[in-house]
Amino acid sequence: MRLYDYFRSSASFRVRIGLNLKGIEVERSPVHLIKEGGQQFASAFTALNPQQLVPVLDVDGAMLTQSLAILEYLDETHPEPPFLPEGALGRARVRALALSIACDLHPLNNLRVLKYLKDGLDRSEDERNAWYRHWVAVGLGAFEALLAGHPDRGRFCHGDRPGLADITLVPQIFNAKRLDCPLGDYPLTMGIFEACMAEEAFDKAQPANQPDAE
Amino acid sequence: MRLYDYFRSSASFRVRIGLNLKGIEVERSPVHLIKEGGQQFASAFTALNPQQLVPVLDVDGAMLTQSLAILEYLDETHPEPPFLPEGALGRARVRALALSIACDLHPLNNLRVLKYLKDGLDRSEDERNAWYRHWVAVGLGAFEALLAGHPDRGRFCHGDRPGLADITLVPQIFNAKRLDCPLGDYPLTMGIFEACMAEEAFDKAQPANQPDAE
Repeated sequence: MRLYDYFRSSASFRVRIGLNLKGIEVERSPVHLIKEGGQQFASAFTALNPQQLVPVLDVDGAMLTQSLAILEYLDETHPEPPFLPEGALGRARVRALALSIACDLHPLNNLRVLKYLKDGLDRSEDERNAWYRHWVAVGLGAFEALLAGHPDRGRFCHGDRPGLADITLVPQIFNAKRLDCPLGDYPLTMGIFEACMAEEAFDKAQPANQPDAE
Repeated sequence: MRLYDYFRSSASFRVRIGLNLKGIEVERSPVHLIKEGGQQFASAFTALNPQQLVPVLDVDGAMLTQSLAILEYLDETHPEPPFLPEGALGRARVRALALSIACDLHPLNNLRVLKYLKDGLDRSEDERNAWYRHWVAVGLGAFEALLAGHPDRGRFCHGDRPGLADITLVPQIFNAKRLDCPLGDYPLTMGIFEACMAEEAFDKAQPANQPDAE
């Protein structure tokens, strides 16, 4: 397997955590999302993923895209340790937590969206930062409330083993910290973040520890 | 089971298709996203879903959120007809197609985002429509390219049975049509859309056929 990723990409970070948790070693091909106008737009990479997004996981020539689909694939093909709990209701809860970030928070603050706000809508850096922080506040506020009321919350989002929701959460917190978003209102979420970062699989996957880190 | 939805919501539409395909009858509670400043913001609904988004599927008191998580739940608990193919690579492909819309297209054009562009960033209707059409073009262009090169494409996104990718695609096309987005560049995608709409499960789920339709 070969992973095409970028050290700072949240979706790439998720897949790196997943690979580490499963103990899967892969070859790495960094794709720089800024240099050369964005290497993801080069024809060679577009041929691998027409969405022009990282990560891509090359599995014997099959190009897997979309971080959550890749994580489900890893979980189906390498069941231990599982990313999802056993019961269907628990699985639905964990997937919903992950999707609340992967659908409703992260895509709004992605590089290409911030670029459109700047170049397409001529919005200032202050306005772009306010946009960013607004969606972080909405998304993490809901995430905290989803955690607060639930009996299955443990040391991690669901019980005492990290899974799909934790894997999706952690890169989002890294992003929020990088943009100086206030995080004091999310004590349960941040407690889980800290528990995750104490795990080697998460720490090894963080942007600063990648070969292409700047 | 009780479905909290809104006739025009794409994510609700997905779940209605899924329920119809599985032949599951549910009670319905419409949540009007515009009236009264948005019924999703009322405290009664926020208690069900802190994300203040539809759909919510109440399964014996467990509040399932996030349309793709709900669809996976329905598929796990009601396996026939399946929403995902058998092999792990095929499942990864179908999930990635669905997520390419559910993560990278739909959330950018959601009501709350268009509202922020208007109220938070004072953007004109023309600018908001250009934003909308831009992300539709990027998203469907990539979707078409993902379909084009793949041997597993059939009458539907994956083979000859509708699944998770088709369920996610169809509501997005309804939205794109409502906003007069040009669709001529996506013949494979639109062929699949037409094949879906010939199926009763899809047709019955469309906005115009809901009890709360306006």
